[in-house]
Amino acid sequence: MAKDYDLSWIMRKNHYVNRLLKEKKEGMVDEDIVPLLELINSLNAYYTTSSCSGRIQIAETEIPGEKGVMRVVAKWHRPITAEELKATVEASEARNLWLGVQPPILHIMCRSIDDALKMLVIARGSGFKRAGIQGIKEGRCPVEIVGTERIEMPLILDGKLIVKYEKYPLLVEKVNRVLLKSKERIKRLENALKQRFNVNSATL
Amino acid sequence: MAKDYDLSWIMRKNHYVNRLLKEKKEGMVDEDIVPLLELINSLNAYYTTSSCSGRIQIAETEIPGEKGVMRVVAKWHRPITAEELKATVEASEARNLWLGVQPPILHIMCRSIDDALKMLVIARGSGFKRAGIQGIKEGRCPVEIVGTERIEMPLILDGKLIVKYEKYPLLVEKVNRVLLKSKERIKRLENALKQRFNVNSATL
Repeated sequence: MAKDYDLSWIMRKNHYVNRLLKEKKEGMVDEDIVPLLELINSLNAYYTTSSCSGRIQIAETEIPGEKGVMRVVAKWHRPITAEELKATVEASEARNLWLGVQPPILHIMCRSIDDALKMLVIARGSGFKRAGIQGIKEGRCPVEIVGTERIEMPLILDGKLIVKYEKYPLLVEKVNRVLLKSKERIKRLENALKQRFNVNSATL
Repeated sequence: MAKDYDLSWIMRKNHYVNRLLKEKKEGMVDEDIVPLLELINSLNAYYTTSSCSGRIQIAETEIPGEKGVMRVVAKWHRPITAEELKATVEASEARNLWLGVQPPILHIMCRSIDDALKMLVIARGSGFKRAGIQGIKEGRCPVEIVGTERIEMPLILDGKLIVKYEKYPLLVEKVNRVLLKSKERIKRLENALKQRFNVNSATL
């Protein structure tokens, strides 16, 4: 007979897997990260609880990282054009506007400490240097994996343009490169997991 | 009699504490973080292995985060002036130059999983949301604590100024605010640890 913690593991996993399915149907999950999430969920010892594949974000705030104070004006999970950036900045009346490229973030529940340690090794090997166990509970062990590639910079401060529009093409080229590097890293993690757990793509 | 792993814990701790003392004497440790490091080292179940209190950095690189490729041109563990920033940029012949404000980072070795979990709770309560256990070995458990406040932005791309010098005072004000917020958070962690472990400042 299954142990109690096995049953509660399966129940919790079902809850998160079903929520992901529902959110996927509603178009609320970034497609770039779906294959990785489904791969992790196909493994017995793991499931994902939340994720972001990395994004470009425009926010109204005096300094970055002010949760609660910061107001997100626009976000994209894909490369953007200089025109899109300009249109967003022009449309805003904010006195302080920041541009961010945020790295992927992934929360994975692991069934045991050993499963968590295994995941950390794979994540680090795929270039996710910020990966750690967040806590240890009876029969489950949450791991957080965060990318390190990012941009965080002011576009407008005190109502003044910090970067002139004519420089946007140069800037956006780098912004997109940083975002795409994050997306590549997600693919790398996916491939490393497939290899480690002998998952055949056809079985997913 | 002490167990083997107790002896090896004490030997390892001594190694790191002595190295810190040596580096402190040589002026290689940022003073802002020394009281926190000494507090952690005064606790039986912990010692620090490496740290940075947060810094402002100018680096030559095409995109940030390119370890090995990136060349650090200047760094400060304190607020800077617009003049200092301008002088650094003017003196550089780099075609691509990035300005970063990097958050504090702290590596702490903990004697057990329970000691590590205790440290995570205190770190998160002090606003360090990126804190995790990096691995688990016989008798020691490394924890990484990283701040979240940062700036990462290009000053020069393809040889062109992305931010004009006249905007540096506005920019530097924010740069310094982000750095100082990190330093405050270090103080907050220090105070939270003192409270949690009933450490009297006079005994340090």
